[in-house]
Amino acid sequence: MKNLLFGYLDKERIETLREKFTEMNVVDIAQIFEEIPEEKKLIIFRILPKDIAAEVFSYISQKEQQFIIESITDKEVQSLVEDLYLDDTVDFVEELPANVVKKVLRNTDDETRKRINFFLNYPENSAGSIMTIEYVDLKKNMTVKEAISRIKKIGIDRETIDTCYVTSKGRKLEGVVLLRQIILSDENEIIENIMDKDVKYVNTHDDQETVALLFKKYDLLAVPVTDNEDRLVGIITIDDILDIIEEETTEDFYKMAAMEPSEDDYLDTSIFSLAKHRIVWLLVLMISATFTGSIIKKYEDVLQAVVILTAFIPMLMDTGGNAGSQSSTLVIRGLALGDIKLKDWPKVLFKEFRVSLVVGSTLAVVNFLRIYFLEKVDFYVAVTVCSTLFFTVVIAKAVGGLLPMIAKKLKVDPAIMASPLITTIVDALVLMLYFATATMLLGI
Amino acid sequence: MKNLLFGYLDKERIETLREKFTEMNVVDIAQIFEEIPEEKKLIIFRILPKDIAAEVFSYISQKEQQFIIESITDKEVQSLVEDLYLDDTVDFVEELPANVVKKVLRNTDDETRKRINFFLNYPENSAGSIMTIEYVDLKKNMTVKEAISRIKKIGIDRETIDTCYVTSKGRKLEGVVLLRQIILSDENEIIENIMDKDVKYVNTHDDQETVALLFKKYDLLAVPVTDNEDRLVGIITIDDILDIIEEETTEDFYKMAAMEPSEDDYLDTSIFSLAKHRIVWLLVLMISATFTGSIIKKYEDVLQAVVILTAFIPMLMDTGGNAGSQSSTLVIRGLALGDIKLKDWPKVLFKEFRVSLVVGSTLAVVNFLRIYFLEKVDFYVAVTVCSTLFFTVVIAKAVGGLLPMIAKKLKVDPAIMASPLITTIVDALVLMLYFATATMLLGI
Repeated sequence: MKNLLFGYLDKERIETLREKFTEMNVVDIAQIFEEIPEEKKLIIFRILPKDIAAEVFSYISQKEQQFIIESITDKEVQSLVEDLYLDDTVDFVEELPANVVKKVLRNTDDETRKRINFFLNYPENSAGSIMTIEYVDLKKNMTVKEAISRIKKIGIDRETIDTCYVTSKGRKLEGVVLLRQIILSDENEIIENIMDKDVKYVNTHDDQETVALLFKKYDLLAVPVTDNEDRLVGIITIDDILDIIEEETTEDFYKMAAMEPSEDDYLDTSIFSLAKHRIVWLLVLMISATFTGSIIKKYEDVLQAVVILTAFIPMLMDTGGNAGSQSSTLVIRGLALGDIKLKDWPKVLFKEFRVSLVVGSTLAVVNFLRIYFLEKVDFYVAVTVCSTLFFTVVIAKAVGGLLPMIAKKLKVDPAIMASPLITTIVDALVLMLYFATATMLLGI
Repeated sequence: MKNLLFGYLDKERIETLREKFTEMNVVDIAQIFEEIPEEKKLIIFRILPKDIAAEVFSYISQKEQQFIIESITDKEVQSLVEDLYLDDTVDFVEELPANVVKKVLRNTDDETRKRINFFLNYPENSAGSIMTIEYVDLKKNMTVKEAISRIKKIGIDRETIDTCYVTSKGRKLEGVVLLRQIILSDENEIIENIMDKDVKYVNTHDDQETVALLFKKYDLLAVPVTDNEDRLVGIITIDDILDIIEEETTEDFYKMAAMEPSEDDYLDTSIFSLAKHRIVWLLVLMISATFTGSIIKKYEDVLQAVVILTAFIPMLMDTGGNAGSQSSTLVIRGLALGDIKLKDWPKVLFKEFRVSLVVGSTLAVVNFLRIYFLEKVDFYVAVTVCSTLFFTVVIAKAVGGLLPMIAKKLKVDPAIMASPLITTIVDALVLMLYFATATMLLGI
């Protein structure tokens, strides 16, 4: 398909090309656009019908967007911004360098410019910053017939018409009605009778994570956004929510692996930027781990007396880290999805405690059988290792279960309380316990 | 609100209660339903208007669903199943014990029973198993007016009417048209002229993860599902996709923390079930870690000669594990989102190699300054520790970057190649390297 299109391009069969593009999905066009040699990009962009060009523009990468804005005329910028949905305009204006932003703002009318600036003032990741203002508003005393004719009149410019909002004179939100309900109702029915008054809505300053949870809980396709005076100011549609859920989850994955989150595509990110995102945490954890080292140093004489004890250190440390991160991952994910609430902390702790008794004793018994009978390790050494192993699991699960909840309570992202940090903390506790037990049982 | 409703219930003000419920969101009713004392549940369920009862039923937990089916009469089961969407019926039938399933199937008509059985035969997590058959189909030679009258006629029973599908006589998929486009078009327009022929669709046997990626890529609200003969057999709507994305991501989180994935809510899962999901991996990893221990045992004499070397083992192991899981997490997430493809493996490896040079040398230098100048460690010991540290990072990043891709190539879920497994593998490599370097540099 791509080669066919490039063939048309080479032979300058512009009309055929335009026709082909008109039949294609804009996401596919955007993907092909990224692969076109730079000198042809502008030609292609200008071939596209105006409305398709705007849609394609909202799907191409930031680098390409900047290239287009820099290359086209002021008049073309003006027409592009007119065809874009406001939230897409805000999205790319946010990311572009100042001189390119100036070119955009210079070519928009006063009204749009004011709106863009208004949007840019919402805190990052707030409902206000991701909403769109292109929605369909109806009045409750309209008939279905009147509503349909209003939808026909204004619908073409709206991001969605599948969900319509009923507002009072003061723009207060009074109800929500699905296009589906309107279509399936008698044309003389009054909107008030078919609208749903129990509207689920968010405030402009709510965090996007809260918004995503609302979508999931109520299976919504769109959510209205109100300001502090309860006036309807915009809506958020589900396609944006899918992107946000993906972004937030990726952020959690990165934090849980001790990396600074980044929104850039891995393959497009520079080496130094990747290194920068990883090095801080590695340094912090490396220096914390030397604390564990100093515990070993303190007990050098114990190790010198019973050298075999050293051989079990990796196993104890790894098992502690793994048992702890199992618990922390469960709790972090549960908190993120809203399945676990802060007030559940005693339940979580008690549950993890009971699980750790089962898991810890199983591991300890298996390990005892293996090292005492198979490896023929001294009885007291085997008891030292296995009792430490048991308590390691108990401690690790308590630490892993509690720390994410403490983080949440302190308004820190629970995701940082994952495997790497838990491992470092549990390591130190395990070694102290190990040497204390050894000193006691082996009489060193 | 809840207390108010319970008040009505106690005073047996059934009519008021029914009215209140009719105004409420079904998800909220389902939530309240879970909190009602058991002996009142049936009363409440019977108070609800039939269509609302069915919707509430699809949102309550499996335990509650089973209770309802067991308690109501055969006739009520029949009417409930009639009001449920087929995919919701299939969802709960899949989970219920055999005797309850029998009661359901006994009370459905032949047609529905055949359909349910058909659904149950699709492989788990396939597009077929999550689709619904309640969609609106149109013909391409219909006018907009005819299309609207068909939608009005059949739309009430369909899961979505926002997206309609155009099929040929042989049920082959020919196009897709949004309700929005139909409403905004002239009533004499022919559907063929406004439908989109470039339809994105999936096969009944495609994996649900593939389906989710398609939704994200093209910002879809619904996707048509075709059988092997390209006939339209169902659709999947975005609300189900949100749940699937959540489920798949949670599965990845669990696997990455060395747990068997489970779909149950943490707080509702029994201790033994939780323990069972964690213990297998902990055992496997514990036993693998003893391999690391045997490396230490082999080099006991080196450690006995220079005891201080033991003190740096935790730091080296932890840093190796952390550096490795950073890389594996990036790659696992990139593969899951489709940002990284298998064919990119040389790019990923080269990138990780260059990042590891930057990160490894920084860590090594910082560590050298600290232990040589602050801790006054012997120069050759410091060089041993820091050169091992450098190569640890290089090896860990290579292993972390490659293993998930190898897993994917072998059709194993890359998510298991995360922190715990990488840590165990890197641990062994690090210690071998450490002792080899020590033997060489310190002349032991």
